[in-house]
Amino acid sequence: MASAGHAVHGVGHGALDPAQAQTLGLQTWINGEVDAANLSALATLHGLPSRVFHLAGGSSVGLSIARPFEDFSRTVTSTARLLEWLRSFAPSSRLIVVSSAAVYGADHTGPIPESAALLPMSPYGHHKLVMEQLCQSYVQSFGIHCMVVRLFSVYGPHLRKQLLWDICSRLRSEVAALNLGGTGTEIRDWTDVRDVVRLLARVAEGEWRDDFGVINGGSGRGVSVADIAEELIRHWDSKTVVRFSGVGRPGDPTSLLADNGRVLDMNFDWRIPLERGLADYVEWFRSHARA
Amino acid sequence: MASAGHAVHGVGHGALDPAQAQTLGLQTWINGEVDAANLSALATLHGLPSRVFHLAGGSSVGLSIARPFEDFSRTVTSTARLLEWLRSFAPSSRLIVVSSAAVYGADHTGPIPESAALLPMSPYGHHKLVMEQLCQSYVQSFGIHCMVVRLFSVYGPHLRKQLLWDICSRLRSEVAALNLGGTGTEIRDWTDVRDVVRLLARVAEGEWRDDFGVINGGSGRGVSVADIAEELIRHWDSKTVVRFSGVGRPGDPTSLLADNGRVLDMNFDWRIPLERGLADYVEWFRSHARA
Repeated sequence: MASAGHAVHGVGHGALDPAQAQTLGLQTWINGEVDAANLSALATLHGLPSRVFHLAGGSSVGLSIARPFEDFSRTVTSTARLLEWLRSFAPSSRLIVVSSAAVYGADHTGPIPESAALLPMSPYGHHKLVMEQLCQSYVQSFGIHCMVVRLFSVYGPHLRKQLLWDICSRLRSEVAALNLGGTGTEIRDWTDVRDVVRLLARVAEGEWRDDFGVINGGSGRGVSVADIAEELIRHWDSKTVVRFSGVGRPGDPTSLLADNGRVLDMNFDWRIPLERGLADYVEWFRSHARA
Repeated sequence: MASAGHAVHGVGHGALDPAQAQTLGLQTWINGEVDAANLSALATLHGLPSRVFHLAGGSSVGLSIARPFEDFSRTVTSTARLLEWLRSFAPSSRLIVVSSAAVYGADHTGPIPESAALLPMSPYGHHKLVMEQLCQSYVQSFGIHCMVVRLFSVYGPHLRKQLLWDICSRLRSEVAALNLGGTGTEIRDWTDVRDVVRLLARVAEGEWRDDFGVINGGSGRGVSVADIAEELIRHWDSKTVVRFSGVGRPGDPTSLLADNGRVLDMNFDWRIPLERGLADYVEWFRSHARA
Protein backbone atom coordinates (compact mmCIF):
# COMPACT_ATOMS: atom_id res chain seq x y z
CA MET A 1 0.00 0.00 0.00
CA ALA A 2 2.87 2.32 0.85
CA SER A 3 4.41 1.74 -2.59
CA ALA A 4 1.09 2.79 -4.16
CA GLY A 5 1.34 6.15 -2.42
CA HIS A 6 -0.85 5.43 0.59
CA ALA A 7 0.14 6.42 4.12
CA VAL A 8 0.19 3.22 6.20
CA HIS A 9 -0.15 3.23 9.99
CA GLY A 10 -0.32 0.12 12.12
CA VAL A 11 -1.06 -1.26 15.55
CA GLY A 12 -0.27 -4.71 16.91
CA HIS A 13 2.08 -6.76 19.00
CA GLY A 14 5.51 -6.37 17.51
CA ALA A 15 8.60 -4.56 18.75
CA LEU A 16 9.52 -2.57 15.64
CA ASP A 17 11.79 0.44 15.96
CA PRO A 18 10.99 3.40 13.68
CA ALA A 19 13.70 2.40 11.18
CA GLN A 20 12.31 -1.12 10.90
CA ALA A 21 8.77 0.22 10.56
CA GLN A 22 9.92 2.52 7.76
CA THR A 23 11.61 -0.36 5.92
CA LEU A 24 8.26 -2.19 6.03
CA GLY A 25 6.51 0.85 4.56
CA LEU A 26 4.89 1.88 7.86
CA GLN A 27 4.74 5.57 8.62
CA THR A 28 3.59 4.84 12.20
CA TRP A 29 3.67 1.69 14.29
CA ILE A 30 2.09 1.30 17.74
CA ASN A 31 3.34 -1.78 19.57
CA GLY A 32 0.25 -2.73 21.56
CA GLU A 33 -3.24 -4.12 21.72
CA VAL A 34 -5.78 -3.63 18.93
CA ASP A 35 -8.10 -1.56 21.10
CA ALA A 36 -10.01 1.72 21.07
CA ALA A 37 -7.21 3.67 22.76
CA ASN A 38 -4.57 2.74 20.19
CA LEU A 39 -6.92 3.01 17.21
CA SER A 40 -8.08 6.45 18.33
CA ALA A 41 -4.47 7.49 18.95
CA LEU A 42 -3.67 6.71 15.31
CA ALA A 43 -6.80 8.52 14.12
CA THR A 44 -5.97 11.59 16.17
CA LEU A 45 -2.49 11.75 14.68
CA HIS A 46 -3.31 10.87 11.08
CA GLY A 47 -7.08 11.12 10.53
CA LEU A 48 -9.61 8.33 10.02
CA PRO A 49 -8.53 5.42 7.80
CA SER A 50 -10.06 4.80 4.39
CA ARG A 51 -8.95 1.14 4.50
CA VAL A 52 -8.36 -1.07 7.50
CA PHE A 53 -6.43 -4.33 7.09
CA HIS A 54 -7.14 -6.65 10.01
CA LEU A 55 -4.40 -9.25 10.24
CA ALA A 56 -4.21 -9.51 14.02
CA GLY A 57 -5.03 -12.82 15.65
CA GLY A 58 -3.82 -16.28 16.54
CA SER A 59 -1.46 -17.79 14.00
CA SER A 60 -0.91 -21.38 15.08
CA VAL A 61 -3.22 -24.40 15.25
CA GLY A 62 -0.91 -26.02 17.79
CA LEU A 63 -0.85 -23.00 20.11
CA SER A 64 -4.64 -22.71 19.86
CA ILE A 65 -4.90 -26.24 21.25
CA ALA A 66 -2.31 -25.58 23.97
CA ARG A 67 -3.79 -22.20 24.97
CA PRO A 68 -7.29 -21.83 23.50
CA PHE A 69 -8.29 -18.80 25.56
CA GLU A 70 -5.23 -16.91 24.37
CA ASP A 71 -6.11 -17.76 20.77
CA PHE A 72 -9.70 -16.61 21.45
CA SER A 73 -8.49 -13.30 22.85
CA ARG A 74 -6.09 -12.66 19.99
CA THR A 75 -8.52 -13.51 17.21
CA VAL A 76 -12.03 -12.88 18.56
CA THR A 77 -11.69 -10.15 21.19
CA SER A 78 -9.39 -8.07 18.98
CA THR A 79 -11.94 -8.28 16.16
CA ALA A 80 -14.84 -7.32 18.45
CA ARG A 81 -12.87 -4.28 19.65
CA LEU A 82 -11.92 -3.25 16.13
CA LEU A 83 -15.50 -3.56 14.87
CA GLU A 84 -16.81 -1.54 17.78
CA TRP A 85 -14.27 1.18 17.07
CA LEU A 86 -15.16 1.22 13.36
CA ARG A 87 -18.88 1.40 14.17
CA SER A 88 -18.28 4.34 16.48
CA PHE A 89 -15.68 6.31 14.55
CA ALA A 90 -15.13 5.12 10.98
CA PRO A 91 -18.15 3.14 9.72
CA SER A 92 -17.46 4.04 6.08
CA SER A 93 -13.91 2.62 6.10
CA ARG A 94 -13.36 -0.48 4.04
CA LEU A 95 -12.39 -3.36 6.31
CA ILE A 96 -10.27 -6.16 4.84
CA VAL A 97 -10.13 -9.10 7.22
CA VAL A 98 -7.60 -11.89 6.88
CA SER A 99 -9.12 -15.24 7.76
CA SER A 100 -7.94 -18.79 7.14
CA ALA A 101 -8.80 -21.87 5.13
CA ALA A 102 -8.92 -23.56 8.54
CA VAL A 103 -12.58 -22.48 8.71
CA TYR A 104 -13.34 -25.21 6.15
CA GLY A 105 -12.06 -28.03 8.33
CA ALA A 106 -10.83 -31.43 7.27
CA ASP A 107 -13.73 -32.96 5.39
CA HIS A 108 -13.08 -31.51 1.96
CA THR A 109 -11.36 -33.02 -1.07
CA GLY A 110 -10.43 -31.04 -4.15
CA PRO A 111 -10.91 -27.31 -4.62
CA ILE A 112 -13.03 -25.75 -1.86
CA PRO A 113 -15.46 -22.99 -2.87
CA GLU A 114 -16.27 -20.18 -0.43
CA SER A 115 -19.79 -21.64 -0.09
CA ALA A 116 -18.49 -24.98 1.23
CA ALA A 117 -19.55 -26.26 4.65
CA LEU A 118 -17.61 -24.56 7.45
CA LEU A 119 -16.49 -27.28 9.84
CA PRO A 120 -13.34 -26.12 11.62
CA MET A 121 -11.28 -28.76 13.39
CA SER A 122 -9.32 -26.69 15.91
CA PRO A 123 -9.84 -23.71 18.20
CA TYR A 124 -7.75 -21.76 15.69
CA GLY A 125 -10.25 -22.49 12.91
CA HIS A 126 -13.30 -21.98 15.14
CA HIS A 127 -12.03 -18.62 16.29
CA LYS A 128 -11.36 -17.48 12.70
CA LEU A 129 -14.93 -18.46 11.83
CA VAL A 130 -16.26 -16.56 14.84
CA MET A 131 -14.23 -13.57 13.66
CA GLU A 132 -15.92 -13.73 10.25
CA GLN A 133 -19.32 -14.00 11.89
CA LEU A 134 -18.76 -10.94 14.06
CA CYS A 135 -17.81 -9.01 10.92
CA GLN A 136 -20.98 -10.18 9.20
CA SER A 137 -23.02 -9.11 12.23
CA TYR A 138 -21.56 -5.59 12.20
CA VAL A 139 -22.09 -5.30 8.44
CA GLN A 140 -25.72 -6.36 8.86
CA SER A 141 -26.60 -4.15 11.82
CA PHE A 142 -24.26 -1.17 11.54
CA GLY A 143 -23.44 -0.62 7.88
CA ILE A 144 -19.77 -1.59 8.12
CA HIS A 145 -18.16 -2.62 4.81
CA CYS A 146 -16.06 -5.76 4.99
CA MET A 147 -14.32 -8.28 2.76
CA VAL A 148 -12.94 -11.46 4.27
CA VAL A 149 -9.96 -13.08 2.55
CA ARG A 150 -9.37 -16.69 3.56
CA LEU A 151 -5.68 -17.39 3.16
CA PHE A 152 -4.35 -20.88 2.56
CA SER A 153 -0.68 -21.83 3.04
CA VAL A 154 1.27 -18.60 2.97
CA TYR A 155 5.07 -18.76 2.98
CA GLY A 156 7.89 -16.46 2.04
CA PRO A 157 10.98 -14.63 3.25
CA HIS A 158 10.86 -13.59 6.93
CA LEU A 159 8.54 -16.46 7.96
CA ARG A 160 10.32 -17.95 10.96
CA LYS A 161 8.00 -20.86 11.71
CA GLN A 162 5.99 -23.64 10.06
CA LEU A 163 7.02 -26.23 7.50
CA LEU A 164 9.54 -24.35 5.36
CA TRP A 165 11.31 -22.88 8.38
CA ASP A 166 11.47 -26.28 10.10
CA ILE A 167 12.86 -28.03 7.04
CA CYS A 168 15.48 -25.36 6.30
CA SER A 169 16.54 -25.28 9.96
CA ARG A 170 17.22 -28.99 9.84
CA LEU A 171 18.94 -28.84 6.46
CA ARG A 172 21.31 -26.28 7.95
CA SER A 173 22.13 -28.79 10.71
CA GLU A 174 23.04 -31.22 7.93
CA VAL A 175 20.82 -34.00 9.23
CA ALA A 176 21.11 -37.22 7.26
CA ALA A 177 17.38 -37.85 7.47
CA LEU A 178 14.56 -35.38 7.78
CA ASN A 179 11.79 -36.83 9.96
CA LEU A 180 8.50 -35.01 9.52
CA GLY A 181 5.07 -35.51 11.08
CA GLY A 182 2.09 -36.50 8.96
CA THR A 183 2.07 -38.61 5.82
CA GLY A 184 3.61 -36.19 3.34
CA THR A 185 0.57 -36.57 1.10
CA GLU A 186 -1.21 -33.61 2.72
CA ILE A 187 -2.23 -31.21 -0.04
CA ARG A 188 -1.85 -27.48 0.49
CA ASP A 189 -2.35 -24.42 -1.67
CA TRP A 190 0.97 -22.55 -1.33
CA THR A 191 1.15 -18.82 -1.92
CA ASP A 192 4.11 -16.48 -1.57
CA VAL A 193 3.50 -13.69 0.91
CA ARG A 194 4.53 -11.06 -1.66
CA ASP A 195 1.67 -12.17 -3.92
CA VAL A 196 -0.68 -12.30 -0.93
CA VAL A 197 0.10 -8.68 -0.09
CA ARG A 198 -0.67 -7.71 -3.69
CA LEU A 199 -3.95 -9.64 -3.45
CA LEU A 200 -5.01 -7.85 -0.25
CA ALA A 201 -4.23 -4.49 -1.83
CA ARG A 202 -6.26 -5.45 -4.91
CA VAL A 203 -9.22 -6.50 -2.77
CA ALA A 204 -9.02 -3.21 -0.90
CA GLU A 205 -9.04 -1.14 -4.09
CA GLY A 206 -11.38 -3.25 -6.23
CA GLU A 207 -15.08 -2.83 -6.87
CA TRP A 208 -17.22 -4.00 -3.92
CA ARG A 209 -20.62 -5.11 -5.13
CA ASP A 210 -21.80 -6.02 -1.62
CA ASP A 211 -21.06 -4.72 1.85
CA PHE A 212 -19.87 -8.16 2.91
CA GLY A 213 -18.03 -10.80 0.96
CA VAL A 214 -15.65 -13.73 1.29
CA ILE A 215 -12.79 -14.56 -1.09
CA ASN A 216 -10.48 -17.55 -1.10
CA GLY A 217 -6.95 -16.18 -1.19
CA GLY A 218 -5.52 -19.28 -2.84
CA SER A 219 -3.91 -20.17 -6.16
CA GLY A 220 -6.04 -23.24 -6.90
CA ARG A 221 -2.90 -25.34 -7.29
CA GLY A 222 -2.39 -28.14 -4.77
CA VAL A 223 1.08 -29.43 -3.90
CA SER A 224 1.88 -32.09 -1.32
CA VAL A 225 4.05 -31.55 1.74
CA ALA A 226 6.40 -34.27 0.43
CA ASP A 227 6.90 -32.35 -2.82
CA ILE A 228 7.65 -29.15 -0.90
CA ALA A 229 10.25 -30.99 1.18
CA GLU A 230 11.88 -32.49 -1.92
CA GLU A 231 11.97 -29.13 -3.68
CA LEU A 232 13.59 -27.40 -0.69
CA ILE A 233 16.19 -30.17 -0.45
CA ARG A 234 16.93 -29.75 -4.14
CA HIS A 235 17.35 -25.98 -3.82
CA TRP A 236 19.56 -26.55 -0.79
CA ASP A 237 21.59 -28.99 -2.87
CA SER A 238 21.40 -31.53 -0.04
CA LYS A 239 21.34 -35.31 -0.06
CA THR A 240 19.05 -35.55 2.95
CA VAL A 241 16.31 -38.17 2.86
CA VAL A 242 12.79 -37.30 4.00
CA ARG A 243 10.75 -39.64 6.20
CA PHE A 244 7.19 -39.08 7.40
CA SER A 245 5.79 -40.40 10.67
CA GLY A 246 2.58 -41.45 8.94
CA VAL A 247 0.58 -40.00 11.83
CA GLY A 248 -1.46 -36.86 11.20
CA ARG A 249 -1.51 -34.05 13.75
CA PRO A 250 -4.85 -33.31 15.42
CA GLY A 251 -6.81 -30.72 13.48
CA ASP A 252 -4.56 -31.08 10.42
CA PRO A 253 -6.66 -31.61 7.25
CA THR A 254 -5.46 -33.92 4.47
CA SER A 255 -6.34 -31.38 1.80
CA LEU A 256 -6.77 -27.59 1.80
CA LEU A 257 -7.00 -26.37 -1.76
CA ALA A 258 -8.76 -23.20 -2.88
CA ASP A 259 -11.43 -22.95 -5.49
CA ASN A 260 -9.87 -19.79 -6.93
CA GLY A 261 -12.83 -18.68 -9.08
CA ARG A 262 -13.30 -15.37 -7.29
CA VAL A 263 -9.63 -14.46 -7.52
CA LEU A 264 -9.76 -15.29 -11.24
CA ASP A 265 -12.85 -13.07 -11.60
CA MET A 266 -10.73 -10.22 -10.23
CA ASN A 267 -8.16 -10.85 -13.00
CA PHE A 268 -5.58 -11.20 -10.28
CA ASP A 269 -2.38 -12.93 -11.36
CA TRP A 270 -0.21 -14.88 -8.98
CA ARG A 271 3.23 -13.79 -10.13
CA ILE A 272 5.56 -15.92 -8.05
CA PRO A 273 5.42 -19.58 -9.08
CA LEU A 274 6.11 -22.08 -6.31
CA GLU A 275 9.48 -23.03 -7.79
CA ARG A 276 10.75 -19.45 -7.57
CA GLY A 277 9.13 -18.81 -4.21
CA LEU A 278 10.83 -21.83 -2.67
CA ALA A 279 14.18 -20.88 -4.23
CA ASP A 280 13.79 -17.36 -2.81
CA TYR A 281 12.94 -18.77 0.61
CA VAL A 282 16.02 -20.97 0.68
CA GLU A 283 18.14 -18.03 -0.44
CA TRP A 284 16.67 -15.75 2.25
CA PHE A 285 17.13 -18.46 4.87
CA ARG A 286 20.80 -19.06 3.99
CA SER A 287 21.69 -15.38 3.90
CA HIS A 288 19.52 -13.90 6.66
CA ALA A 289 18.13 -16.44 9.12
CA ARG A 290 20.44 -16.82 12.11
CA ALA A 291 21.01 -20.18 13.73
CA MET B 1 -32.53 -28.69 40.82
CA ALA B 2 -32.63 -27.73 44.47
CA SER B 3 -36.06 -29.38 44.86
CA ALA B 4 -34.58 -32.60 43.44
CA GLY B 5 -32.04 -32.65 46.26
CA HIS B 6 -29.11 -31.07 44.46
CA ALA B 7 -26.98 -28.35 46.03
CA VAL B 8 -27.15 -25.31 43.75
CA HIS B 9 -24.49 -22.59 43.71
CA GLY B 10 -24.48 -19.66 41.36
CA VAL B 11 -22.47 -16.76 39.98
CA GLY B 12 -23.67 -13.83 37.93
CA HIS B 13 -24.70 -10.21 37.98
CA GLY B 14 -27.57 -9.90 40.41
CA ALA B 15 -27.78 -8.32 43.85
CA LEU B 16 -29.40 -11.15 45.80
CA ASP B 17 -29.15 -11.18 49.56
CA PRO B 18 -28.75 -14.63 51.21
CA ALA B 19 -32.46 -14.83 52.06
CA GLN B 20 -33.46 -14.11 48.46
CA ALA B 21 -30.93 -16.62 47.18
CA GLN B 22 -32.34 -19.26 49.55
CA THR B 23 -35.89 -18.58 48.34
CA LEU B 24 -34.65 -19.25 44.79
CA GLY B 25 -33.11 -22.55 45.92
CA LEU B 26 -29.55 -21.24 45.83
CA GLN B 27 -27.23 -22.39 48.58
CA THR B 28 -24.58 -19.88 47.46
CA TRP B 29 -24.74 -16.83 45.22
CA ILE B 30 -21.75 -14.77 44.07
CA ASN B 31 -22.77 -11.41 42.63
CA GLY B 32 -20.06 -10.92 40.03
CA GLU B 33 -18.51 -11.82 36.69
CA VAL B 34 -18.55 -15.35 35.29
CA ASP B 35 -14.78 -15.72 35.48
CA ALA B 36 -12.12 -18.09 36.74
CA ALA B 37 -11.79 -16.34 40.12
CA ASN B 38 -15.48 -16.67 40.99
CA LEU B 39 -15.85 -20.16 39.54
CA SER B 40 -12.81 -21.38 41.46
CA ALA B 41 -14.11 -19.68 44.61
CA LEU B 42 -17.31 -21.74 44.35
CA ALA B 43 -15.35 -24.91 43.64
CA THR B 44 -13.06 -24.33 46.64
CA LEU B 45 -16.06 -23.94 48.92
CA HIS B 46 -18.29 -26.66 47.54
CA GLY B 47 -16.27 -28.95 45.27
CA LEU B 48 -16.37 -29.27 41.50
CA PRO B 49 -19.81 -29.17 39.86
CA SER B 50 -21.39 -32.23 38.23
CA ARG B 51 -23.70 -29.98 36.17
CA VAL B 52 -23.16 -26.41 35.01
CA PHE B 53 -26.10 -24.37 33.75
CA HIS B 54 -24.89 -21.45 31.67
CA LEU B 55 -27.62 -18.81 31.46
CA ALA B 56 -25.41 -15.73 31.58
CA GLY B 57 -25.43 -13.39 28.60
CA GLY B 58 -27.21 -10.62 26.81
CA SER B 59 -30.98 -10.78 27.04
CA SER B 60 -32.29 -8.10 24.70
CA VAL B 61 -32.21 -7.69 20.93
CA GLY B 62 -32.71 -3.94 21.32
CA LEU B 63 -29.84 -3.50 23.76
CA SER B 64 -27.59 -5.60 21.54
CA ILE B 65 -28.18 -3.07 18.75
CA ALA B 66 -27.69 -0.08 21.06
CA ARG B 67 -24.56 -1.52 22.73
CA PRO B 68 -23.22 -4.45 20.69
CA PHE B 69 -19.87 -4.70 22.44
CA GLU B 70 -21.60 -5.02 25.80
CA ASP B 71 -23.79 -7.81 24.40
CA PHE B 72 -20.64 -9.46 23.00
CA SER B 73 -18.92 -9.32 26.37
CA ARG B 74 -21.92 -10.67 28.27
CA THR B 75 -22.63 -13.53 25.90
CA VAL B 76 -19.36 -14.43 24.19
CA THR B 77 -16.59 -13.49 26.62
CA SER B 78 -18.42 -15.03 29.58
CA THR B 79 -18.80 -18.28 27.63
CA ALA B 80 -15.13 -18.31 26.61
CA ARG B 81 -14.11 -17.83 30.25
CA LEU B 82 -16.47 -20.54 31.48
CA LEU B 83 -15.28 -23.04 28.86
CA GLU B 84 -11.65 -22.33 29.71
CA TRP B 85 -12.37 -22.89 33.39
CA LEU B 86 -14.21 -26.15 32.65
CA ARG B 87 -11.36 -27.36 30.43
CA SER B 88 -8.85 -26.64 33.16
CA PHE B 89 -10.73 -27.77 36.25
CA ALA B 90 -13.91 -29.71 35.53
CA PRO B 91 -13.85 -31.20 32.02
CA SER B 92 -16.19 -34.04 32.97
CA SER B 93 -18.98 -31.72 34.17
CA ARG B 94 -22.10 -31.66 32.07
CA LEU B 95 -22.57 -28.19 30.61
CA ILE B 96 -26.12 -27.08 29.78
CA VAL B 97 -26.04 -23.87 27.74
CA VAL B 98 -29.10 -21.70 27.23
CA SER B 99 -29.18 -20.24 23.73
CA SER B 100 -31.95 -18.58 21.76
CA ALA B 101 -34.18 -19.14 18.76
CA ALA B 102 -32.70 -15.84 17.56
CA VAL B 103 -29.88 -17.91 16.03
CA TYR B 104 -32.35 -19.01 13.33
CA GLY B 105 -33.04 -15.48 12.13
CA ALA B 106 -36.04 -14.19 10.26
CA ASP B 107 -36.23 -16.31 7.13
CA HIS B 108 -38.16 -19.27 8.49
CA THR B 109 -41.86 -20.09 8.29
CA GLY B 110 -43.49 -22.88 10.25
CA PRO B 111 -41.76 -25.14 12.77
CA ILE B 112 -37.96 -24.73 12.72
CA PRO B 113 -35.85 -27.87 13.20
CA GLU B 114 -32.48 -27.64 14.94
CA SER B 115 -30.82 -28.39 11.58
CA ALA B 116 -32.31 -25.27 9.94
CA ALA B 117 -30.06 -22.59 8.44
CA LEU B 118 -28.62 -20.31 11.13
CA LEU B 119 -29.02 -16.74 9.89
CA PRO B 120 -29.24 -14.44 12.90
CA MET B 121 -30.59 -10.93 12.31
CA SER B 122 -29.17 -9.03 15.28
CA PRO B 123 -25.98 -8.84 17.33
CA TYR B 124 -27.95 -10.65 20.05
CA GLY B 125 -28.58 -13.62 17.73
CA HIS B 126 -25.06 -13.58 16.26
CA HIS B 127 -23.50 -13.61 19.71
CA LYS B 128 -25.69 -16.54 20.82
CA LEU B 129 -24.57 -18.43 17.72
CA VAL B 130 -20.94 -17.60 18.46
CA MET B 131 -21.51 -18.90 22.01
CA GLU B 132 -22.77 -22.22 20.62
CA GLN B 133 -19.79 -22.45 18.31
CA LEU B 134 -17.29 -21.89 21.10
CA CYS B 135 -18.98 -24.69 23.03
CA GLN B 136 -18.73 -26.98 20.02
CA SER B 137 -15.05 -26.09 19.67
CA TYR B 138 -14.29 -27.02 23.28
CA VAL B 139 -16.27 -30.25 22.97
CA GLN B 140 -14.30 -31.17 19.85
CA SER B 141 -10.83 -30.29 21.10
CA PHE B 142 -11.01 -30.75 24.87
CA GLY B 143 -13.63 -33.40 25.63
CA ILE B 144 -16.13 -31.07 27.29
CA HIS B 145 -19.72 -32.37 27.38
CA CYS B 146 -22.34 -29.84 26.34
CA MET B 147 -26.00 -29.61 25.44
CA VAL B 148 -27.35 -26.38 23.99
CA VAL B 149 -31.02 -25.58 24.59
CA ARG B 150 -32.41 -22.92 22.26
CA LEU B 151 -35.23 -21.18 24.09
CA PHE B 152 -38.05 -19.46 22.27
CA SER B 153 -40.40 -16.94 23.93
CA VAL B 154 -40.10 -17.53 27.64
CA TYR B 155 -42.45 -15.65 29.99
CA GLY B 156 -43.67 -16.07 33.52
CA PRO B 157 -43.91 -14.49 36.96
CA HIS B 158 -40.97 -12.21 37.87
CA LEU B 159 -40.26 -11.24 34.24
CA ARG B 160 -40.09 -7.45 34.40
CA LYS B 161 -39.57 -6.68 30.72
CA GLN B 162 -40.72 -7.64 27.22
CA LEU B 163 -44.21 -7.95 25.77
CA LEU B 164 -46.24 -9.22 28.74
CA TRP B 165 -44.66 -6.74 31.15
CA ASP B 166 -45.23 -3.85 28.75
CA ILE B 167 -48.88 -4.75 28.16
CA CYS B 168 -49.68 -5.27 31.84
CA SER B 169 -47.91 -2.02 32.77
CA ARG B 170 -50.13 -0.13 30.37
CA LEU B 171 -53.29 -1.97 31.43
CA ARG B 172 -52.56 -0.85 34.98
CA SER B 173 -52.43 2.75 33.74
CA GLU B 174 -55.92 2.16 32.36
CA VAL B 175 -55.04 3.34 28.87
CA ALA B 176 -58.01 3.42 26.50
CA ALA B 177 -55.94 2.09 23.61
CA LEU B 178 -52.87 -0.10 23.69
CA ASN B 179 -50.48 0.91 20.88
CA LEU B 180 -47.93 -1.79 20.12
CA GLY B 181 -45.09 -1.98 17.60
CA GLY B 182 -45.11 -4.55 14.83
CA THR B 183 -48.12 -6.02 13.05
CA GLY B 184 -49.52 -8.28 15.77
CA THR B 185 -49.32 -11.24 13.41
CA GLU B 186 -45.81 -12.16 14.59
CA ILE B 187 -45.87 -15.81 15.63
CA ARG B 188 -43.99 -16.92 18.73
CA ASP B 189 -43.65 -20.17 20.65
CA TRP B 190 -44.56 -19.17 24.24
CA THR B 191 -43.29 -21.20 27.16
CA ASP B 192 -43.75 -20.59 30.87
CA VAL B 193 -40.46 -20.24 32.74
CA ARG B 194 -41.50 -22.90 35.26
CA ASP B 195 -41.78 -25.45 32.46
CA VAL B 196 -38.48 -24.22 30.99
CA VAL B 197 -36.71 -24.83 34.30
CA ARG B 198 -38.12 -28.38 34.35
CA LEU B 199 -36.90 -28.87 30.79
CA LEU B 200 -33.36 -27.72 31.62
CA ALA B 201 -33.26 -30.07 34.61
CA ARG B 202 -34.49 -32.93 32.42
CA VAL B 203 -31.82 -32.22 29.81
CA ALA B 204 -29.18 -32.17 32.55
CA GLU B 205 -30.25 -35.54 33.95
CA GLY B 206 -31.23 -37.31 30.73
CA GLU B 207 -29.22 -39.72 28.62
CA TRP B 208 -26.56 -37.99 26.50
CA ARG B 209 -25.81 -40.01 23.40
CA ASP B 210 -23.28 -37.47 22.12
CA ASP B 211 -20.86 -35.04 23.75
CA PHE B 212 -22.52 -32.14 21.96
CA GLY B 213 -26.12 -31.59 21.03
CA VAL B 214 -28.71 -28.92 20.36
CA ILE B 215 -32.36 -29.02 21.46
CA ASN B 216 -35.16 -26.60 20.65
CA GLY B 217 -36.69 -25.63 23.99
CA GLY B 218 -40.07 -24.84 22.46
CA SER B 219 -43.60 -26.21 22.66
CA GLY B 220 -44.24 -26.41 18.92
CA ARG B 221 -47.37 -24.27 19.31
CA GLY B 222 -47.38 -20.87 17.63
CA VAL B 223 -49.50 -17.99 18.93
CA SER B 224 -49.57 -14.47 17.55
CA VAL B 225 -48.64 -11.36 19.50
CA ALA B 226 -52.19 -10.04 18.90
CA ASP B 227 -53.68 -13.14 20.52
CA ILE B 228 -51.37 -12.76 23.53
CA ALA B 229 -52.47 -9.13 23.92
CA GLU B 230 -56.15 -10.03 23.68
CA GLU B 231 -55.77 -12.84 26.22
CA LEU B 232 -54.00 -10.58 28.72
CA ILE B 233 -56.71 -7.93 28.31
CA ARG B 234 -59.36 -10.59 28.92
CA HIS B 235 -57.62 -11.82 32.10
CA TRP B 236 -57.27 -8.22 33.23
CA ASP B 237 -60.98 -7.76 32.58
CA SER B 238 -60.23 -4.57 30.65
CA LYS B 239 -62.00 -2.95 27.71
CA THR B 240 -58.78 -1.59 26.22
CA VAL B 241 -58.43 -1.79 22.45
CA VAL B 242 -55.14 -2.96 20.88
CA ARG B 243 -53.59 -1.21 17.89
CA PHE B 244 -50.42 -2.20 16.08
CA SER B 245 -48.08 0.22 14.33
CA GLY B 246 -47.77 -2.14 11.37
CA VAL B 247 -44.02 -1.53 11.31
CA GLY B 248 -41.72 -4.37 12.36
CA ARG B 249 -38.74 -3.70 14.59
CA PRO B 250 -35.29 -4.33 13.08
CA GLY B 251 -34.17 -7.89 13.66
CA ASP B 252 -37.64 -9.02 14.72
CA PRO B 253 -38.68 -12.18 12.81
CA THR B 254 -42.27 -12.69 11.68
CA SER B 255 -42.27 -16.29 12.94
CA LEU B 256 -40.23 -18.17 15.54
CA LEU B 257 -41.82 -21.53 16.15
CA ALA B 258 -39.99 -24.63 17.39
CA ASP B 259 -39.96 -27.99 15.71
CA ASN B 260 -40.33 -29.76 19.06
CA GLY B 261 -39.44 -33.29 17.90
CA ARG B 262 -36.43 -33.61 20.19
CA VAL B 263 -38.36 -32.47 23.24
CA LEU B 264 -41.09 -35.01 22.35
CA ASP B 265 -38.41 -37.71 22.02
CA MET B 266 -37.46 -36.96 25.63
CA ASN B 267 -41.09 -37.57 26.67
CA PHE B 268 -41.06 -34.14 28.20
CA ASP B 269 -44.50 -32.70 28.90
CA TRP B 270 -45.16 -28.98 28.93
CA ARG B 271 -47.48 -28.73 31.94
CA ILE B 272 -48.53 -25.10 31.92
CA PRO B 273 -50.83 -24.30 29.00
CA LEU B 274 -50.62 -20.76 27.67
CA GLU B 275 -54.07 -19.87 29.05
CA ARG B 276 -53.02 -20.71 32.61
CA GLY B 277 -49.58 -19.19 32.20
CA LEU B 278 -51.01 -15.87 31.08
CA ALA B 279 -53.59 -15.91 33.89
CA ASP B 280 -50.78 -16.58 36.40
CA TYR B 281 -48.72 -13.75 34.93
CA VAL B 282 -51.58 -11.27 35.26
CA GLU B 283 -52.20 -12.43 38.83
CA TRP B 284 -48.50 -12.10 39.73
CA PHE B 285 -48.36 -8.66 38.09
CA ARG B 286 -51.41 -7.33 39.97
CA SER B 287 -50.28 -8.63 43.34
CA HIS B 288 -46.49 -8.20 43.19
CA ALA B 289 -45.28 -5.85 40.48
CA ARG B 290 -44.93 -2.33 41.83
CA ALA B 291 -45.82 0.67 39.69
